[in-house]
Amino acid sequence: MLNTNIDQDDSLILHTDLYEINMMYTYFKKGISERNAVFEVFFRKEPFGNGYALNAGLSHVIEYLNNFHFSESDLQYLKEQENYDDDFIDYLRNMKLQLTVRSALEGELVFAHEPIMQIEGPLAQCQLVETAILNIINFQTLIATKAARIKVAVGDDGLMEFGTRRAQETDAAIWGTRAAYIGGFDATSNVRAGKLFGIPISGTHAHSLVESFDSEYEAFKAYAETHKDCVFLVDTYDTLRSGVPTAIKVAKEMGDKINFLGVRIDSGDMAYISKKVRKQLDDAGFRDAKIFASNDLDEKTIQNLKMQDAKIDVWGIGTKLITAFDQPALGGVYKLVAIEDENGNMRDTLKISSNAEKVSTPGKKQVWRIQANSEKKNEGDWVSEYDEDPRDFEALFMFHPQYTYINKVVTDFTARPLLQTIFLEGEQVYHEPSLQEVKEFAAKNLDGLWDEYKRSLNPQDYPVDLSQRLYDHKMNLINDIRSKIMKRGY
Amino acid sequence: MLNTNIDQDDSLILHTDLYEINMMYTYFKKGISERNAVFEVFFRKEPFGNGYALNAGLSHVIEYLNNFHFSESDLQYLKEQENYDDDFIDYLRNMKLQLTVRSALEGELVFAHEPIMQIEGPLAQCQLVETAILNIINFQTLIATKAARIKVAVGDDGLMEFGTRRAQETDAAIWGTRAAYIGGFDATSNVRAGKLFGIPISGTHAHSLVESFDSEYEAFKAYAETHKDCVFLVDTYDTLRSGVPTAIKVAKEMGDKINFLGVRIDSGDMAYISKKVRKQLDDAGFRDAKIFASNDLDEKTIQNLKMQDAKIDVWGIGTKLITAFDQPALGGVYKLVAIEDENGNMRDTLKISSNAEKVSTPGKKQVWRIQANSEKKNEGDWVSEYDEDPRDFEALFMFHPQYTYINKVVTDFTARPLLQTIFLEGEQVYHEPSLQEVKEFAAKNLDGLWDEYKRSLNPQDYPVDLSQRLYDHKMNLINDIRSKIMKRGY
Repeated sequence: MLNTNIDQDDSLILHTDLYEINMMYTYFKKGISERNAVFEVFFRKEPFGNGYALNAGLSHVIEYLNNFHFSESDLQYLKEQENYDDDFIDYLRNMKLQLTVRSALEGELVFAHEPIMQIEGPLAQCQLVETAILNIINFQTLIATKAARIKVAVGDDGLMEFGTRRAQETDAAIWGTRAAYIGGFDATSNVRAGKLFGIPISGTHAHSLVESFDSEYEAFKAYAETHKDCVFLVDTYDTLRSGVPTAIKVAKEMGDKINFLGVRIDSGDMAYISKKVRKQLDDAGFRDAKIFASNDLDEKTIQNLKMQDAKIDVWGIGTKLITAFDQPALGGVYKLVAIEDENGNMRDTLKISSNAEKVSTPGKKQVWRIQANSEKKNEGDWVSEYDEDPRDFEALFMFHPQYTYINKVVTDFTARPLLQTIFLEGEQVYHEPSLQEVKEFAAKNLDGLWDEYKRSLNPQDYPVDLSQRLYDHKMNLINDIRSKIMKRGY
Repeated sequence: MLNTNIDQDDSLILHTDLYEINMMYTYFKKGISERNAVFEVFFRKEPFGNGYALNAGLSHVIEYLNNFHFSESDLQYLKEQENYDDDFIDYLRNMKLQLTVRSALEGELVFAHEPIMQIEGPLAQCQLVETAILNIINFQTLIATKAARIKVAVGDDGLMEFGTRRAQETDAAIWGTRAAYIGGFDATSNVRAGKLFGIPISGTHAHSLVESFDSEYEAFKAYAETHKDCVFLVDTYDTLRSGVPTAIKVAKEMGDKINFLGVRIDSGDMAYISKKVRKQLDDAGFRDAKIFASNDLDEKTIQNLKMQDAKIDVWGIGTKLITAFDQPALGGVYKLVAIEDENGNMRDTLKISSNAEKVSTPGKKQVWRIQANSEKKNEGDWVSEYDEDPRDFEALFMFHPQYTYINKVVTDFTARPLLQTIFLEGEQVYHEPSLQEVKEFAAKNLDGLWDEYKRSLNPQDYPVDLSQRLYDHKMNLINDIRSKIMKRGY
């Protein structure tokens, strides 16, 4: 591990952009570092053109926040680099987590333009944690979403994560496979991820085993003599002429001594080859032997192979999942939405932009998932000021925040708040569920979504509406700021 | 950190695919785990359509190999999951690194189809380290290469790495910025990367600082009163009407009390705005103040902005660099090239494929960089059997390994071997240079490459040729295996 060799004191506390600490210094020196602030995390577009995102990363964020302290070597480094006054260094030395963190849970469906995490507390602390939180949430939510897309494509087939060798360094491999498991994968090849997170692990052998013996036959035989469960990789020399016949021969010779689970193909035309292999296996009497496929697969190639009636039972997914190859970053941002003024009152803030969609929504908020009782499917999300509660309404007016003429009235509904309290003034109050529970929660949430939102290409837009109060507040604040800029001349 | 909370024993030893350990088990049970084997790492195509790749990751690989041991909890986990016999668990418990590792150094230019790392030693150990080595090398080489492309685009302008919030989890952020530094970046925003690796750190403030004060003026003023070096972010409300005029006002008020380094723009049309900002700064007498730009930039947008005469002096690069957005994985592989037989002789191995380019090159090899003495530019690389030395030849015959009619004879040349011994039978014999030295080595290597190979679009193909001996050997082995497959019927 990184920290054992290079720096015994290494932790994520300095895993932040320098500007965060430079801002903390200004806040501290100007006496406003302890003012109460509220920041919210949101993204502006679902990844991959998907209709939803699947939230993940909270577990790592919790771990990060539970290890919130500066070591002496951290402080020394900051002093040397930035020459901060000693009173600030002391302030950092004595800093203890005081933040209140509210978050959508892992496995929750989340959508563009709604807060998925909310950080409240002393301005300086809020600022410090921005970078690491975005780093973690952006990546894990991206991968969980990609995994959910792939899961839709494979249906009830087996789904294995094989991506470590192409992951973006070591953390991405293990947290990525955890996110993939939440999103619907069944197992991983990464042993460390299995040990750390309790994910089922899976894997048999590579080409090198075949090449390490004098023949494919000797290699398969040796493997079968040392393992009960056998999946033979059959494409080292020639899948149809050598690999599969050799696998069948060994399976017959070994009989009940092994579980001949099937064969794996890692190259060639998967549609053509898998059908030929299926016939070879069936003809030999191994109708239950499964065909495992891997080789740069993703939801698009899987859909194509299925349309061509490829005979694949278990899919091993590597590069395209673990790097989210077609869109390797989620653009989640962290924005100040409210700040305490000199009189102790909260002032809501807004970031204006020449791009209409980039104008943020001010104030501390809550997100409510509105479900129709008749259908048990989501009607949409209703973003409100934090102290509003849609359950106070018999009929809920929901309208599009840009095109307000697109609207509806929902009655007989259930509403539940998405942002749950994880830390309250620095203390963890949320008890993490098991990873298995998170996975089941994700599957249940996906069940609550109409298929139209789950289509992999051009899904329907899911409604993320503002409450009337929040909408009016936003419009007023935009007008306020605009007129201030005009009045000043600059 | 991951290991502090979840598992005190966490290390990278289990950061491997399960099939590696399952193969080790077969080798162990069949008595061949200690046979000498040689594996080599190579990739089949340079990323981004680039003409070269810039090698990085060795430092992390060294750290990984120096921490090569199984903890008791690792062994217990393996026993529970896979039910290995106790003799194998004992074998793992007593395992000490015995590998010889040869590698291209960090900052070395490397090309498709040549070995960039070579692992030799007991078969079982070679197998175990495959996954982590590929995970590390694939990512860091990818990012160093992307960084080098961006460096070519910016020329002598400043170049900052700002990507942590979009990186694929935490390791990617810090090792990625290290790779970017090797590739030509000047600094990073990630404080932890600065502390761990000695990379210069950079950063001033975000929009949230501006919003935390009652006005942009008060925010800039507060920043200036607490920091000597000032770069003001000017696009919170309105860059041209508010941000830049306010920055100028504060800079004038503060006078010599600050170094007004310039302003940063993070949104809007960079070409148009930067020219307007330049004029505002010049008109106010701040001709030395620099314009910093950031906002989804990469080598293509930079080239475009420069063509439009954008007035940008320092470039902050995030997402597109740290995720290698346009190609987020390098497809480096790890292939067995030779294995000891039962008589103690080395047998060279080959992976046949229906795809001609995917047929591997057998045997333990060396790569020689051939440079013409007259020009001090590379003539190409010459891949040989390990015991060949091109310096034995007055005139070197170099030919394309597929299109052998493309060939040349090189005289008056210098040849240096790329694969250097890093570990010899488990002992580190290589002394790592400083990161600064690695960076300089990379720049020097890029100087040795003709511009035709450095073009960002459709560069010339760099020659990676085989020695005549190696070529003949490969052809013979292909014929051998083909005829064996035919003879067997399967």
